[in-house]
Amino acid sequence: MRFVDIIEKKRDGGRLSREEINFWISEYVAERIPDYQVSALCMAIYFQGMDGEEIADLCNAMLHSGDIIDLSSIQGIKVDKHSTGGVGDKTSLSLTPMVAACGAKVAKMSGRGLGHTGGTLDKVESIKGFNVFLDEDAFVKQVNDIGIALIGQTKSLVPADKKLYALRDVTATVNSIPLIASSIMSKKLAAGSDAILLDVKFGEGAFMQSVEDAEELAATMITIGKHLGRDTRAMISNMNQPLGNAIGNALEVKEAIATLKNEGPADFTELCLQAGSIMLVQAKIAENEEAAMVMLKKSIEDGSALAKLMELVAAQGGDVEQIKHPELLPTSKTVVEIKTHKNGWIRELKALELGTLAMQIGAGRAVKEDTIDPAVGIVLNKKAGDAIHDGDVLAYVHINAPLSDEWINHFHECFVVSDTVCEKMPLIVKVL
Amino acid sequence: MRFVDIIEKKRDGGRLSREEINFWISEYVAERIPDYQVSALCMAIYFQGMDGEEIADLCNAMLHSGDIIDLSSIQGIKVDKHSTGGVGDKTSLSLTPMVAACGAKVAKMSGRGLGHTGGTLDKVESIKGFNVFLDEDAFVKQVNDIGIALIGQTKSLVPADKKLYALRDVTATVNSIPLIASSIMSKKLAAGSDAILLDVKFGEGAFMQSVEDAEELAATMITIGKHLGRDTRAMISNMNQPLGNAIGNALEVKEAIATLKNEGPADFTELCLQAGSIMLVQAKIAENEEAAMVMLKKSIEDGSALAKLMELVAAQGGDVEQIKHPELLPTSKTVVEIKTHKNGWIRELKALELGTLAMQIGAGRAVKEDTIDPAVGIVLNKKAGDAIHDGDVLAYVHINAPLSDEWINHFHECFVVSDTVCEKMPLIVKVL
Repeated sequence: MRFVDIIEKKRDGGRLSREEINFWISEYVAERIPDYQVSALCMAIYFQGMDGEEIADLCNAMLHSGDIIDLSSIQGIKVDKHSTGGVGDKTSLSLTPMVAACGAKVAKMSGRGLGHTGGTLDKVESIKGFNVFLDEDAFVKQVNDIGIALIGQTKSLVPADKKLYALRDVTATVNSIPLIASSIMSKKLAAGSDAILLDVKFGEGAFMQSVEDAEELAATMITIGKHLGRDTRAMISNMNQPLGNAIGNALEVKEAIATLKNEGPADFTELCLQAGSIMLVQAKIAENEEAAMVMLKKSIEDGSALAKLMELVAAQGGDVEQIKHPELLPTSKTVVEIKTHKNGWIRELKALELGTLAMQIGAGRAVKEDTIDPAVGIVLNKKAGDAIHDGDVLAYVHINAPLSDEWINHFHECFVVSDTVCEKMPLIVKVL
Repeated sequence: MRFVDIIEKKRDGGRLSREEINFWISEYVAERIPDYQVSALCMAIYFQGMDGEEIADLCNAMLHSGDIIDLSSIQGIKVDKHSTGGVGDKTSLSLTPMVAACGAKVAKMSGRGLGHTGGTLDKVESIKGFNVFLDEDAFVKQVNDIGIALIGQTKSLVPADKKLYALRDVTATVNSIPLIASSIMSKKLAAGSDAILLDVKFGEGAFMQSVEDAEELAATMITIGKHLGRDTRAMISNMNQPLGNAIGNALEVKEAIATLKNEGPADFTELCLQAGSIMLVQAKIAENEEAAMVMLKKSIEDGSALAKLMELVAAQGGDVEQIKHPELLPTSKTVVEIKTHKNGWIRELKALELGTLAMQIGAGRAVKEDTIDPAVGIVLNKKAGDAIHDGDVLAYVHINAPLSDEWINHFHECFVVSDTVCEKMPLIVKVL
């Protein structure tokens, strides 16, 4: 088998066989196929696409390029959730304790943030002592004991994805649905859960700009799940404004805690309840989404979801006092109110730019090596659809260093104001 | 400037600026852009194409990546000819002495053969002592003295093309008209002539399969010539059967000599006369093609074209006796007649496969390192359009080792025979 023939076949719109895909991935990981051939193939895939079976074969080849977490010793259906990433997305922090409180088994692996999007690991690490580095045995034991664990991805999972992603990043081949879908799904499958819920976001602050692209990505990942025998479902959600109000690590933990007390923002609460109800059905704990919704709401009302978060934090060495008293979480020296001078209605709230602004004040990383300040960030006081009047506070900015005029000007530009009433944006536009 | 942004721009159908193209080529040659980015860009160009100005800019950047031959000390208009390569194409051997005999200045750089196509250098090297390694001064001096010289490309011309071609060869990005056109034209322009005639071949034995593709390639190269101020013209010729009758190095030299005595095959003679008449117009030696044709025919009739070939051979240390007495050129031990058992008309004569068969008996190279046997090859006795009868000789195969049955069977399969009369194929279908 010559790799150049495989490139040519895809270039000419042919479909790659399982053998060809396995050859590609195994030889590439073994460094017997050079980067310059793989980047040409990725570009050919960008233009010619892949069919469902090819994508499933690619995902499966990637999945088997490294270790696979074995969760078989955990009883019951293990459910996992993946978000394609957005601004203010602290879903895992509220959602996983909610579903675990209802009896689902959640063995969650999360990542760190880069650029305008945050990462769950960074967020939980604002809790003093929280250890995300459990080994596989401790991880499995904890899920068996308390139904929930949250760790970082171990190095040995899906090495093919690490190599491929690094190459795609510098060759303008990131934005290909077959390559995105197989990358995400290989990591979720390697993490070992039986059922996966995907939160595929669209909009200005998301990886997929249009709802159509988000749906195509979701459908592609569901196809992979079908081919490889994992119950995979997806919801398509709006990232044309940040999710919830808080952007920034400790601030998002605080908002997640508030949500578990039924004091969170409406949009974020809605997303957690919708996602959780699908996951409880996937875990066969609820018969249908309506029944699941009742259970989830009860887990908030009776405090069991918050108690589950405390159990998780305690099990992983974190300071439970900070959950009981969120004011003990890292706090910035200064909070600046940003007021508007306009009158009207907020039509749009630029999520990507708000994420970037939060990063610039220390809440995120421009490059992998940057360190994060857990205390800083933005808490929005107005969202899309809200009426505003001259003098209203748009947001509270939590900082440990002065804000530049340029930053403040840029912040104001994130709010697109209309003279006429604007509808609230729908949050979840579809469930697949 | 980030190279990934350039890849993305082309991927999305944008046009690259001169600055971006210069950055690409200069940084790539300096090894500051890695192969894996350039192969992704080449694949993006394969799909998105380039406009005339982009291609000219690319050609110009490549041209200036190395040395450029300075022919300015040679008086008059220097004319060059380039064939995109085919089977049995010994045009340079007859054509250049013809136009030089008419007064044109021909400073010709040629290449070696690989795969099913032969190279002019290999062909002239079947003449004992012929030296293709002249330095630039000797090359220029010889064109000034006798109007003609024929050498191999020096190593320092167009290093960007060498690097790019090697990469394209293993990444399925050879077959892109913008990349082919800029590659060919950068080498022709670096060789320094004022006017270039392109013989762009189409058909089963050519690089371009269809006449449309050949025309597009020709038009693209003419556009480059226009942008860069060189008189560039092209003819589109048929390579659905070998050109002339001889395939193999010394055999082709013999056929070229016969053609200069007006004893060559009709198709090959036609091609030389047509090409030569365009070149004499380009050199401003003839006012129009009709007048040029008269001059060229005269150069054959009065022996001046053959005398010019002898002058060329003598000047480059070759054995002129072998030109006077072609039977002194390398000769194989055995000549095998291959006879048909069929009756009918030859509809098609598979050029690519005949080229490959000639290579297999030693007339060409499968890989660059192979050595060539100058004596061996195939001389066709029947061509497309000819009637055949059981017992007719299809060809004479000149060999120094026995032919396998497999080879002979394969040879017979190259002749597609029809029950009904077949028209002769047109040779030159268009002049641009």
